[in-house]
Parts: sequence; structure tokens; C-alpha cells
Amino acid sequence: MADQAGSETNHLPLILVHRLPSFDLALTNILQTHFRILDPLHSSQPLDSFLTSHAQSVRALIVYALSPLTADTIRLLPSLEVVVGTSAGVDHIDISECRNRGITVTNAGDAFAEDVADCAVALLIDVLRRVSAGDRYVRSGLWRLRGEYTLGSKLGGKRVGIVGLGRIGSQVAQRLMAFGCIIAYNSRKKKSSVQYPYYAKVCDLATNSDILMVCCSLTSETHHLINKEVMKALGKEGVIVNVGRGGLVDEQELIQLLTREEIGGAGLDVFEEEPDVPGELFALDNVVLSPHKAVLTPESIEAVFQLSLANLKCFFSNEPLRSVVQQE
Amino acid sequence: MADQAGSETNHLPLILVHRLPSFDLALTNILQTHFRILDPLHSSQPLDSFLTSHAQSVRALIVYALSPLTADTIRLLPSLEVVVGTSAGVDHIDISECRNRGITVTNAGDAFAEDVADCAVALLIDVLRRVSAGDRYVRSGLWRLRGEYTLGSKLGGKRVGIVGLGRIGSQVAQRLMAFGCIIAYNSRKKKSSVQYPYYAKVCDLATNSDILMVCCSLTSETHHLINKEVMKALGKEGVIVNVGRGGLVDEQELIQLLTREEIGGAGLDVFEEEPDVPGELFALDNVVLSPHKAVLTPESIEAVFQLSLANLKCFFSNEPLRSVVQQE
Repeated sequence: MADQAGSETNHLPLILVHRLPSFDLALTNILQTHFRILDPLHSSQPLDSFLTSHAQSVRALIVYALSPLTADTIRLLPSLEVVVGTSAGVDHIDISECRNRGITVTNAGDAFAEDVADCAVALLIDVLRRVSAGDRYVRSGLWRLRGEYTLGSKLGGKRVGIVGLGRIGSQVAQRLMAFGCIIAYNSRKKKSSVQYPYYAKVCDLATNSDILMVCCSLTSETHHLINKEVMKALGKEGVIVNVGRGGLVDEQELIQLLTREEIGGAGLDVFEEEPDVPGELFALDNVVLSPHKAVLTPESIEAVFQLSLANLKCFFSNEPLRSVVQQE
Repeated sequence: MADQAGSETNHLPLILVHRLPSFDLALTNILQTHFRILDPLHSSQPLDSFLTSHAQSVRALIVYALSPLTADTIRLLPSLEVVVGTSAGVDHIDISECRNRGITVTNAGDAFAEDVADCAVALLIDVLRRVSAGDRYVRSGLWRLRGEYTLGSKLGGKRVGIVGLGRIGSQVAQRLMAFGCIIAYNSRKKKSSVQYPYYAKVCDLATNSDILMVCCSLTSETHHLINKEVMKALGKEGVIVNVGRGGLVDEQELIQLLTREEIGGAGLDVFEEEPDVPGELFALDNVVLSPHKAVLTPESIEAVFQLSLANLKCFFSNEPLRSVVQQE
């Protein structure tokens, strides 16, 4: 059965769920008390013919997690008006096609910002103070055998450059201020609402920082924003934390510089070809690797479910949506 | 040669270095430009006869790191007036004997507080958000194979009970406020200078907390302060972080509760029988183990070296010492 809605729910608005088979979110249970759900994965038809047969009248689509939504799929949906995203970044959605069609796109808004920021700070202290490496050292029995343990370095007083001072970057800055760090930032535009020094060029920010916290969106402009030149500017004691997207950092260059000790360390929640992580990183003691879960706690997931539900309700009530992505 | 000072430095005040052979601090290089250094480990004589032969006039002794200073050793030094400690806690020094003799004891003062607090926060986020466990997961290749990864829980909004609101506990509180945590504390006395709710009994603090941050000194009164009753009061989702001393927590009870999942997790920088860590902990995924290095960075070590030097200079100039331990 393609349309899972029974006749008693036929009066409910129709929404299309777009997801990879591995993203079977509990969100469906919340949505189906308010909407009729159309999920192509519940049909044996191929996606294209399913959409052509059943989704011509669909006005609203929800994208689960990071399921890629291509221009080809969007073109099969002539009535589409809104794409509700459930992630902080929306680089998996063809924003250009949405913009051309005038389709509104929403994201996770603030729902994930605190959890990502917490995780970014944890990754930073972990790299500087060697927390995960220390855990490996104790668990392997080496503490008892060898005694001495390589020291890390102090967080307080470090110059931290935030790349992308949006919802997440702002929360990172607020936390690191409490540790006595000195904050500066780079973003597309200077923000009049904050006092931190602004650098229009990320390379200048790197030159004047001990640490780069990469918190911006991945777009065609920001792909490999953290390139060899930026990493060299950061210098051999420098630390990079990436909680944005893997594509923001030139991963191969980062690996080269880490291996040659031309950069101090890295805390990475995201990678260019997730879940494939370059094996060279596994051999390094000055990196902390995280399986792209900086955003996720039960609390943040519940928050994004409620935000997604609210966005859909607003759409069908002709009210302003809660977390619209600005398409520039 | 017992006394390493040459004749040209005979006018310098004499200090006795007390250390385990494994603690050969660079501090000696700093001290010997200001003092004559007496180091029993540079002699082949046994300690007792060395002290009886060479140290009867010693007024000042410096203890490197956590080298145990017993009452028996102190009794061999009839002229001793000051013991300069280089650690935050001084449970390795027989404080009772010092008090009886009227010997002043100093510690690391504020020098280590920021670094310990940074590490305590990192251990907490690590346990809650499974940072080290995630690093193990990625490095072992399981992310690619299995995909899904157990989520942690959110830091913001958690009720954090600080056990011991001294230099370290206060810095921990300040940092966790920036993450949106709700702070309360237990200490010997209510502090008029802070607004956080005070609990006279640590068990009541545990009942009203999601997390306990153990930051107090180890004394005969605080040994096993975090006992089974306190851990049960904290509850099955509760997390304990210990950056004080191993003896503050009943380690065997903690292991039992962790294994039976009657407590949520633990971040431990200190253990009862360091560097021996109970093997049961190595099998647990909800603990983060650190080799008693929360205090140590090159920056904090330099700070404590300078503080120790300042304390010794003050002593020999009859000026007030910088970081006297209150002996109650």
C-alpha cells in the first residue's frame, strides 16, 4: 500500500517522507497523528515511478537526517512548496533547485546548536589535554608499566578562531569564554551584534589563532575553506576542530600535515566520505575521531522532531515557518 | 657528594628536596640559582642516616609532586619550619605531624586549578556524550560496519553537584554555568561569597543532582565520602567525575554499581591504588579513565614552579607565604 493513511484520516494534509532506508526515525509516529504520510520506501515501486504515480499533489516534503535530496527528485514533484529539513546543515538538499523553484527550505534551527557546541568544546579539550589518548593509555595497562605520560597544553589564554559565527559558533564562543579563551571569528559578513574581532579572510584568522573551530555551513563557496594555506597559517602547534561538514576541510592535506607534525592536532566529528574515515587517521595519537554525532542527544532529537512538526503545521496553516534557511 | 652546593654558593639558604626517584623535576634547575640544594637521592647513604648526618640544620623542605612525606621523616628534621608542596592536594604529607610541630605547609595554590577544572569538564562531557567511546568506535572500523552509534545525553540543564567548592570546584562551576548547568555544592562550610544552593550533607546533594563533580581534598574525614549510599542517591542515570583523589570514592562500590548499571557513568582521573587501575573498569564503555594528569600542562607546571620558588624566597625573607594550607 503506497498511501499508509486510512480513510478515517483522509482529511489530514499529505506529506512526503524522503529518507534513506537506514534513517527510520521515530518522527513518523509523531507526524502520522497530524498528517497523512507518504513513504516511498513502504512501496515496492522504484522511487521515480512511485513519485509520478502518487506524489503529484504533494506540497510538503520532510527529509530525514542527511538523506540526499537531488534536483532530479525535486523535479518529479511539481506541486512542492516546502522542504522541511531535520538537520543543522542542508548541503544534502539541492538548494539551488529549491531556490529556482521558489521552494522554502527549513533546517534544525537552534535545536542542535547546544549539543554541537558541547561536543566541539569536548573535542577541543580532548585534543589539547589528550583525554581519549589518556583513556587508551590507561586501558592498555601502559600507565602501570611506563608511568610517565605525555602532557597536553592549557586551554586558558588560547586564541580561538571561530569559522562561522552562526547558531553553533556563537554557542561555542560563549562556552570557551568561560575557559579564559580569546575569541575571534570569520564569517561571510561582520556581525554588528558581537564584540569579537572579525577577520574577513579565514587565512588571516588562522594566522592570529592557536585553534580553529570550524562551525560553518558547507556550500560551493566553503568547500575546502580550510585548505593547506589556512592550515599552514595556523601553524605547527595549531589545533583544528571540525563539527561542520567533512568537505569544509581538505582532509588529505590535513592528514599530511598531521603526519608530518606541521599541525598540532585535530578533533573531527565529520569526514569527507562518511562513514569511511581515512585509515591514516587511526594511527595518529593527536586526533580525536567522532562518528558524526556531535548534534545528537535524545534531548536534541526530541527538540528537532517538535520543530519539524511545528514547521509543517505552520505551513498548512499559512503561518510563518520557524527555521527557514536563507537561500542566497 | 651530599651537598651539591659549591663553596661560591655557601651563602645561599639551604633547602632539602624530598622526592621519589621518578620525580626528577626541572624545578631543581630553577631552585639552585637561589638556594643550596640538599638531595638525599644524590647520596648513596640511606635516607635516615643521610638526614641525620646532613640535614639537622634544614629549615625548609620542598616535596616534589606526590612523594610521600611521613611523620618518621619529619621527626628526623629538628629544625624544619616549612614544607613547600608542589601539588594541589597534600594528603601525601603527614599534616598531623606538621601541625603538632608548628611546621607551615604550602601547596600549589591556584596554579593547577584551571587545568584541573578544564579536565573535569572534559571528562564530564566525554562520559555524557561518549567522546572516547566514539573515538574507539571509529578507530576500530565499527562506524563503517555498523553505522548506528549509541547516543549520549545532553549537558545543558543537568543538575551538577560540586563536592568541595574550593579553588578547583569554583572553576568547574564557572565553566559549567556556561553550558547551562544548574549548580549546587557541598563543602565543610557554607560559603557566603557564592549564590549556589548549599547542601551540608553530600548525600542530600547527590539526591538533588544528576552529576557529582568530586573536587575536594582527601583527609581522614573525606575518605570514602562518596560511598554506596551517596552513589545510590545519585541514581542510575547519575555520573560521577573524580579529579580529587582516588580515596574520596569507594572504588569497589563504584565498580559494582557501574557494572550493574545502577549508576550511569564515571570520569576518573584518580584511583585508590595508582597507577594500578582495577581491571573491571577497562571492560566498561561508560567510564573514561585518565592517568592522574588533570592538573598537568607545561603552563601549570611552570606556574607551580614559580609559586614554589616564591614561597621559599618569602620564607627566607620573613615575608608571608603565598599558598599556606589551612591545618584544621
